[in-house]
Amino acid sequence: MSTEETASDITAGTYRALCKHGYAEVTMEDIAAETDRSKSALHYHYDSKHDLLVSFFDGLLEQFTDRLDAVEGETAHDRLLDLIDTILFPPDDAHPDRQFQTAVLELKAQGPYDEAFRRHLQDHDRTLRTHVEEHLADGVESGEFREDLDIEASADFLVTVFNGAQTRSVAVGRPIEESRETLAAHIDSMIVADGGCE
Amino acid sequence: MSTEETASDITAGTYRALCKHGYAEVTMEDIAAETDRSKSALHYHYDSKHDLLVSFFDGLLEQFTDRLDAVEGETAHDRLLDLIDTILFPPDDAHPDRQFQTAVLELKAQGPYDEAFRRHLQDHDRTLRTHVEEHLADGVESGEFREDLDIEASADFLVTVFNGAQTRSVAVGRPIEESRETLAAHIDSMIVADGGCE
Repeated sequence: MSTEETASDITAGTYRALCKHGYAEVTMEDIAAETDRSKSALHYHYDSKHDLLVSFFDGLLEQFTDRLDAVEGETAHDRLLDLIDTILFPPDDAHPDRQFQTAVLELKAQGPYDEAFRRHLQDHDRTLRTHVEEHLADGVESGEFREDLDIEASADFLVTVFNGAQTRSVAVGRPIEESRETLAAHIDSMIVADGGCE
Repeated sequence: MSTEETASDITAGTYRALCKHGYAEVTMEDIAAETDRSKSALHYHYDSKHDLLVSFFDGLLEQFTDRLDAVEGETAHDRLLDLIDTILFPPDDAHPDRQFQTAVLELKAQGPYDEAFRRHLQDHDRTLRTHVEEHLADGVESGEFREDLDIEASADFLVTVFNGAQTRSVAVGRPIEESRETLAAHIDSMIVADGGCE
């Protein structure tokens, strides 16, 4: 196996192990059981479970950034909606994504305690805000969005809503589809030029 | 000590132990250490840590409901803003509230795995939505809020935003004060009659 194959095998195994056991409970043994290698082989690559998870989440951020960069649509409004789908919906329906969202929520709860994770979460948050800001700025420039739109504040608000939709989906089983509908309505009224005004 | 004093001692101790150790790590021993009683005395009242925490969170929901009932203000708009402060800000500045919010986020991540906690979280979510809906309905009736306001959808959206503000505060240290500002602006534009339209 090449280094790349090894990394991708470990990533896929970590993903499955996190879905099955959750962040708090998952062990190196659980992760090894989901890969083609032994626990000691994992320890050859990573000093600790923490190291492995930091590297896993770094890889995830890279993938997430790639997906945000791949957002498409004819208008800024279309691209903003595509971005929302990219964030709220799984890249692959085969993935047990609610379980994974749960592991991510556990990770978010580690923010105050764990510097490496907090840095990762902050990068993630910033990347997301920057991408949203770009689409908003495009839409203001093209005249699709209100010319007086506070781009920074609106992007920040949208990121807060994404976080809330994900948290409620995990905590109380609020369907993420409904959050998407409300978000689309919010954008129509608050962001689209002349939206919501009669 | 009366039964009531015992309950309040255990509640206060559980709160402190959760703040110090987090949900995943806290033990009956940690909780006992924060109260006037021994670990075996705690086991006299509760079969397990899980039982104790379920009872603790039930008490918390009751307190939370009382605080929501106590929301005040001259207009529906004032009451809605007071409710937001009630949700986003600590009842008592002496409490290490970010730590407690972290424990609550850990609890939310248990939603999919733990039926008792999930029920508690769903009650909490529903109570909050109902209170928000009442203030929105009041404001529509008094003419303060848009007459075409979709009360249910707006209340639900606000609850999503509260969840997002709390999650981001824990995960990336986003100041909760800034979320309050954006929320107030959102209400001015989306909910207040003639808001945001020129």
